[in-house]
Amino acid sequence: MKTVLTKDLKDHIGKEVSLKGWIYNIRSSGKLFFLQFRDGYGYTQAIVSEKEVDDKVWKIAGELTMESSVELIGEVSKHPKKEEYELQVKEINVYQIAEEYPISKKDHGPDFLLDNRHLWLRSTKQLAIMRVRNTIINATYEHLNKENFIKVDTPILTPTSCEGTTTLFEVDYFEDDKAYLSQSGQLYLEAATMASNRCFDFGPTFRAEKSKTRRHLTEFWMMDAEAAFVEHEENMKIQEKLILYIVEQVLKNNKTDLEILERDTKALEKIKAPFPRMSHAEAVVKLNKMGSDIKPDEDFGGDDETNLTKGLDSPLFVDLWPRKIKAFYMKQSPDNPDLVLGSDLIAPEGYGEIIGGSQREDDYDILLKSMKDFNLDPKPFQWYLDLRKYGSVPHSGFGYGLERLTGWMCGTQHIRETIAFPRLINRLSP
Amino acid sequence: MKTVLTKDLKDHIGKEVSLKGWIYNIRSSGKLFFLQFRDGYGYTQAIVSEKEVDDKVWKIAGELTMESSVELIGEVSKHPKKEEYELQVKEINVYQIAEEYPISKKDHGPDFLLDNRHLWLRSTKQLAIMRVRNTIINATYEHLNKENFIKVDTPILTPTSCEGTTTLFEVDYFEDDKAYLSQSGQLYLEAATMASNRCFDFGPTFRAEKSKTRRHLTEFWMMDAEAAFVEHEENMKIQEKLILYIVEQVLKNNKTDLEILERDTKALEKIKAPFPRMSHAEAVVKLNKMGSDIKPDEDFGGDDETNLTKGLDSPLFVDLWPRKIKAFYMKQSPDNPDLVLGSDLIAPEGYGEIIGGSQREDDYDILLKSMKDFNLDPKPFQWYLDLRKYGSVPHSGFGYGLERLTGWMCGTQHIRETIAFPRLINRLSP
Repeated sequence: MKTVLTKDLKDHIGKEVSLKGWIYNIRSSGKLFFLQFRDGYGYTQAIVSEKEVDDKVWKIAGELTMESSVELIGEVSKHPKKEEYELQVKEINVYQIAEEYPISKKDHGPDFLLDNRHLWLRSTKQLAIMRVRNTIINATYEHLNKENFIKVDTPILTPTSCEGTTTLFEVDYFEDDKAYLSQSGQLYLEAATMASNRCFDFGPTFRAEKSKTRRHLTEFWMMDAEAAFVEHEENMKIQEKLILYIVEQVLKNNKTDLEILERDTKALEKIKAPFPRMSHAEAVVKLNKMGSDIKPDEDFGGDDETNLTKGLDSPLFVDLWPRKIKAFYMKQSPDNPDLVLGSDLIAPEGYGEIIGGSQREDDYDILLKSMKDFNLDPKPFQWYLDLRKYGSVPHSGFGYGLERLTGWMCGTQHIRETIAFPRLINRLSP
Repeated sequence: MKTVLTKDLKDHIGKEVSLKGWIYNIRSSGKLFFLQFRDGYGYTQAIVSEKEVDDKVWKIAGELTMESSVELIGEVSKHPKKEEYELQVKEINVYQIAEEYPISKKDHGPDFLLDNRHLWLRSTKQLAIMRVRNTIINATYEHLNKENFIKVDTPILTPTSCEGTTTLFEVDYFEDDKAYLSQSGQLYLEAATMASNRCFDFGPTFRAEKSKTRRHLTEFWMMDAEAAFVEHEENMKIQEKLILYIVEQVLKNNKTDLEILERDTKALEKIKAPFPRMSHAEAVVKLNKMGSDIKPDEDFGGDDETNLTKGLDSPLFVDLWPRKIKAFYMKQSPDNPDLVLGSDLIAPEGYGEIIGGSQREDDYDILLKSMKDFNLDPKPFQWYLDLRKYGSVPHSGFGYGLERLTGWMCGTQHIRETIAFPRLINRLSP
């Protein structure tokens, strides 16, 4: 008997097949059991009719509980009107009758659900989010490889930090040495890009931030891309193409998942190039007009980001930021050294910043001075400065946070649901 | 002027193009300069002829140093006999004349090279290794997705370890809490596989091992895959297919890189299914016959692995291991509870173990007893035990170490060269 996946049932109408998976709900009406079945690839209803099966199978059907694991054998039929497929059960082979499942239909608090994250992952919405996340990951690899980026894994254990030291996790290394968990692989990618031309990393990053907002995790996944001979304008074009490809792939591969998540897919379908764009100075003027008291040298708050994208279909690039509120490595604007050739890409619908990027300073002396301006000791960065001595070239890069991007695609504001095992200030398990 | 990549020169014969990159070597013969040019995608020779260029360009050519960054404009020509392409230079635009480059043709010691890893990455062999590694990564994503595995990122910060605690890196978490850097995401994947059916992770793992052999890194990348309803035999088939696909993709995409690495590609071309296979007991008998004094309940040493694969074209599966020298979660053989349904896949040519895998114990009581037999406190593993209460199913998985696999494909025994920024017991930088 061929075991098929629920997602392929349409190819087996009228045939007898085996399905292996779990019962996630059960209804009965006297002489019928309606088993709601899941196998990780989709969902289907399996019908056990007292008339059609022998006594042994009917008895087993009566013993099934939520999350019991089974093989169901039966004939596939199509719903007369809808694109839905059912199984008319003939046999049931039980792997395990599950004990009473702790997660029920009733509302559980977030702590209970996070304590049971190993089981909560099985819920339709949580699995849908994982599947969208998977599409984003794969779309990123596919697209970046097509665009000639190779993956270069940057180190997690680092002696220095990229941007400040207050939010670093400290690790005991050998013989009283200390290491810090990486917050960004960017500086390392800049070294690799002088070898490979274009490269990216995609791995976990860490932030020991004592923040409990819905937007913060202590461990989250970042994708950083870096490209030689690319300047500010082209850098934004590369980001735009990547986001368009990701959105296209999510819409194509995750139709059912987005339905489960009740995601307004029209909002995603409307996204198109070119993305709107304004300078930070223009954004401040716009926000002031909307009633905000943001000053010309201030970063945006979450509300500012939401207000700026109101009425926009596509993400918004904000560029030319005040140098003093951005990182030391950003290249100064040739027109105004107080501004940098950096951009934030802000998602519509209030999902906030999804990409940060910039052209990098490629002049040794300016970079060295910049480190001093930002009170950074140049010594541990000597290797990074070296890149400006041996064949420096214009280069740019950007990074996205996978959880925020997943949250945006899925339409969920709870960042903790966009990663399988979230790590928060007060949560390290399971 | 269109900037093209060296790998695409064959499509531009007779045309004028721009190349952007670095000069990695220079020869001159009176009225000619031969510039060895690299752009990260390949290598080409650019010829500057005093006769053909104006004085300004000739003068610039004379000033170029190793690793100077340039745009070269000229006409593409094909070598009359070989599949090689050259550029007849007309113009040179300099980004930067490099200072004297510290890495020369002469032999440098490994410490010097590792101190200059940010520059050493530019060397032809090092970049070739990075490119092969990239192919392995991409082939893994492609193949596993085709086989219905989704990526589920498992946590790096964990409260407990998978296998023992002596080689864990400890991290200061908030408020006097301690976290440990993950050595394997497997247990977490087992939870996810009950939701998604098949899943994999691919991320950094850490081992605080005080070992300085050429096979050890403190930070390295692991790919773990896990599949529901898969038992021991099918588990090995999945591994076999994955390895075959990776080898095929490396041979297809990295021809030039393997040439640069002087890799004997015939050894890779010979690999085919089915892979040879023997039990651990058979392996011990064979080794004893070869003169080894290995005992029936001992793990292999490096020499044992090399001896076992002598004369084999394909990797060797060794399965049915003594339970007491393997991990607690491996399923006991139905024929002999002292053996487990686990397998090691050993690469030919002395490259050692590349995959470890097993069917997992899916019975609650046996697993609990196993933890006690291995002196593990079941309490932090309660969530893992839960998976055997709520719809337990047969399931199996395996993991490969990216650096070892890269070392095998590239034909290098120095594991530290298979990762961009290696972390060793005495090395945290750059």
